[in-house]
Amino acid sequence: MGKVKEDSNENKTELSLVRVKGTWKCKLGKSDSVSAAKIYESITEKGTSWTVVSPIVFTYKVTETQDLLDPSNNTLLLGHITDPQQLEDNKKSNKQIKRFLVVDQDVYKIYGPKLTKYLEANNVLYKILALPTTEENKSMKMVLKILEEVDNFSLDRRTEPIIAIGGGVCLDIVGLAASLYRRRTPYIRVPTTLLSYIDASIGAKTGVNFANCKNKLGAYIPPAASFLDLSFIQTVPRRHISNGLAEMLKMALMKHRGLFELLETHGRMLLDTKFQVDNGVYGRNCLQAASQSTRIAIVTMLEELVPNLWEDDLNRLVDFGHLISPALEMKVLPSLLHGEAVNIDMSYMVYVSKESGLLTEGEKQRIISCMVGLELPVWHEACTMELIQKSLNDRLKHSGGLVRMPLPIGLGEADICNDTSCEILDRAYAKWCDELSVSSDSNSDS
Amino acid sequence: MGKVKEDSNENKTELSLVRVKGTWKCKLGKSDSVSAAKIYESITEKGTSWTVVSPIVFTYKVTETQDLLDPSNNTLLLGHITDPQQLEDNKKSNKQIKRFLVVDQDVYKIYGPKLTKYLEANNVLYKILALPTTEENKSMKMVLKILEEVDNFSLDRRTEPIIAIGGGVCLDIVGLAASLYRRRTPYIRVPTTLLSYIDASIGAKTGVNFANCKNKLGAYIPPAASFLDLSFIQTVPRRHISNGLAEMLKMALMKHRGLFELLETHGRMLLDTKFQVDNGVYGRNCLQAASQSTRIAIVTMLEELVPNLWEDDLNRLVDFGHLISPALEMKVLPSLLHGEAVNIDMSYMVYVSKESGLLTEGEKQRIISCMVGLELPVWHEACTMELIQKSLNDRLKHSGGLVRMPLPIGLGEADICNDTSCEILDRAYAKWCDELSVSSDSNSDS
Repeated sequence: MGKVKEDSNENKTELSLVRVKGTWKCKLGKSDSVSAAKIYESITEKGTSWTVVSPIVFTYKVTETQDLLDPSNNTLLLGHITDPQQLEDNKKSNKQIKRFLVVDQDVYKIYGPKLTKYLEANNVLYKILALPTTEENKSMKMVLKILEEVDNFSLDRRTEPIIAIGGGVCLDIVGLAASLYRRRTPYIRVPTTLLSYIDASIGAKTGVNFANCKNKLGAYIPPAASFLDLSFIQTVPRRHISNGLAEMLKMALMKHRGLFELLETHGRMLLDTKFQVDNGVYGRNCLQAASQSTRIAIVTMLEELVPNLWEDDLNRLVDFGHLISPALEMKVLPSLLHGEAVNIDMSYMVYVSKESGLLTEGEKQRIISCMVGLELPVWHEACTMELIQKSLNDRLKHSGGLVRMPLPIGLGEADICNDTSCEILDRAYAKWCDELSVSSDSNSDS
Repeated sequence: MGKVKEDSNENKTELSLVRVKGTWKCKLGKSDSVSAAKIYESITEKGTSWTVVSPIVFTYKVTETQDLLDPSNNTLLLGHITDPQQLEDNKKSNKQIKRFLVVDQDVYKIYGPKLTKYLEANNVLYKILALPTTEENKSMKMVLKILEEVDNFSLDRRTEPIIAIGGGVCLDIVGLAASLYRRRTPYIRVPTTLLSYIDASIGAKTGVNFANCKNKLGAYIPPAASFLDLSFIQTVPRRHISNGLAEMLKMALMKHRGLFELLETHGRMLLDTKFQVDNGVYGRNCLQAASQSTRIAIVTMLEELVPNLWEDDLNRLVDFGHLISPALEMKVLPSLLHGEAVNIDMSYMVYVSKESGLLTEGEKQRIISCMVGLELPVWHEACTMELIQKSLNDRLKHSGGLVRMPLPIGLGEADICNDTSCEILDRAYAKWCDELSVSSDSNSDS
């Protein structure tokens, strides 16, 4: 923790906070400090100024598991507890477990009976709220609806985490509701789509749309735990597998050549098998590709998010594909899925990279081919130069005056660029339309 | 940061996060770590589990100033900036300053012209939203109303903090709105009541009422800065000075005998002068009492809040007077002010302390006399034994199974008690009603 800088003509003092008989006392100097928090006192003629520096430590788990809804698997109910003694006490306790669950409506249609059976087999006192957690419904209104039900259910905000089961929208909405309830109620994320499995489940962000803008309201409060069970992915439509592969491809292009090659080689198989390992045709290959690709996607995502949990560092590789796509996604809602909009953004950026001399023509073509192989759209008529300019101008405004554009340099490496000229953006756009608009059109006709 | 404990039969690894060319990479072991964040990886037969430990450091200023609305005082516009270089750059910059301000409606009636003049003299591009920020209006509806206006105003969420000017309700609502906007927009608190001067301005809490419960929704996000100017207090009605003195008395009883004696001796003068120093009758005495009492109240509050910014420690002396008062305040809304409800709670607790053998009869009488001298209610008919029991039961539920009741032991010291019997609570209640109900009745008749 750095010393706070003040004008040198001030009378300044560093105060440590020491625990004395159940209370805290300010004490001069650094010795005997119990709290990591500090107060710096400056006295000037106008009065006193106190500068407070207080660290809050977030701890959360991202856990792969199998058979999450098997009644003998207690991960869903106890897997968030990190202290072994507390876990032991919980297992021994006769107190009935109480859980409030929010489940996406479509997910509930498929897994509702299994989930109910699980909760009843474990003698849980529960309430399941099934909601249509679509992008269009991702609003404060739904947050308040959840909060009313949570409040009626009357849970203990310290020991009874709210459980969210669904795609990214569901996890984001419930995360925000839980973060607001009594100023912070722990919650658990159970992703049921590939996209949320490798994206929404990893970081701290929650949010809802507001004023026609994606995630304009939200919080940076991580879940107590995310429980990842690949078997949920088997019931996801093929288009939604592609949707998730887009965010996986993002991490591949930014950070991991091996993941890119894996998607290039096995993308089609992953789409066919929906990341399920017991597929007869593909066998062991599939097992490896599914577990390797999700694992690399998760670890690379953790690497980028964990040191920058509250996004104080504005230079973020994970923003690749997210400069233009938010406006595009909202503009054509509900026609593009999130990952599809992201992929269109990435596809254009690959052309920008090529025109900037950061990618060879061959690398560019490999990337676009990989995208097409993953059955992702690589162009969209609503992604106009006007929309691109507006998005980048918004970005400039909200990123401290720099555009901070992540661009791939080769395969699996990237850089943050701030000096891309309008000329390059225009030229990339012209080539992008020229080369990809036809194929996209014919795709959408087929 | 402690090592995360895991079952010993797991294969666990500590990973540091190292910055490599604009990206982050997981690295084995503790060397060369750049980020304070850590990832702990455990591999079991069911899959991998990652435990994330990531500290976020909050920094904020609490600054006493004079003549905050004097056009030559730049504290309101630049006082939140802690980095000297950034401050210098800002002073030199020709860029027009842009600020969104939310001002309590009654405060706006008095200070609106002065505020407008200040902003115009400093060539600020501004929008002032004047709102009736009463306890009854303290809801998510008002938060959303503010957010719509903020969004229309289109501010830069990193460099253009939202400014709240008003009492605690105003500061709480605006704090929550700012915390939600783009997942965190800095905001500034300018308290205009004595209560908010020594209470809401010091800590991290924001909130609104929900489901008939005080501050049931909120966040722990401190302001960038609080700017304290005692001159605002001169326009506060006498009853609201008493209201603030209640929270000051709370800190005195819990932590500071000197502050108690100051309130006992000079309470009446502080009420008469409204903490203004240029009062002819009282002169220099007043100057000292006003500045000493506010300063002690602020420092003792900082001591308790800063090491426990997110209230993870459930044993909190600052909860004194806040176990029964929330339910009481909501029950009789709007007839009791916050500090009045707090004082009634404290008054009962003083009887509990006496019956528990923690206070002498003399000390009890001195405290009650001091309360009466501060023109605070010491009893209320709506504060029934039933309400007390219900409040303490709620407390038990939300405080990990212990009631954690702060009680004064002598003057200016306190303890957290968990084993107060029903018999003591009942006996204290009977004596409390017996000794204080009549005087309170005659007070309210006068």
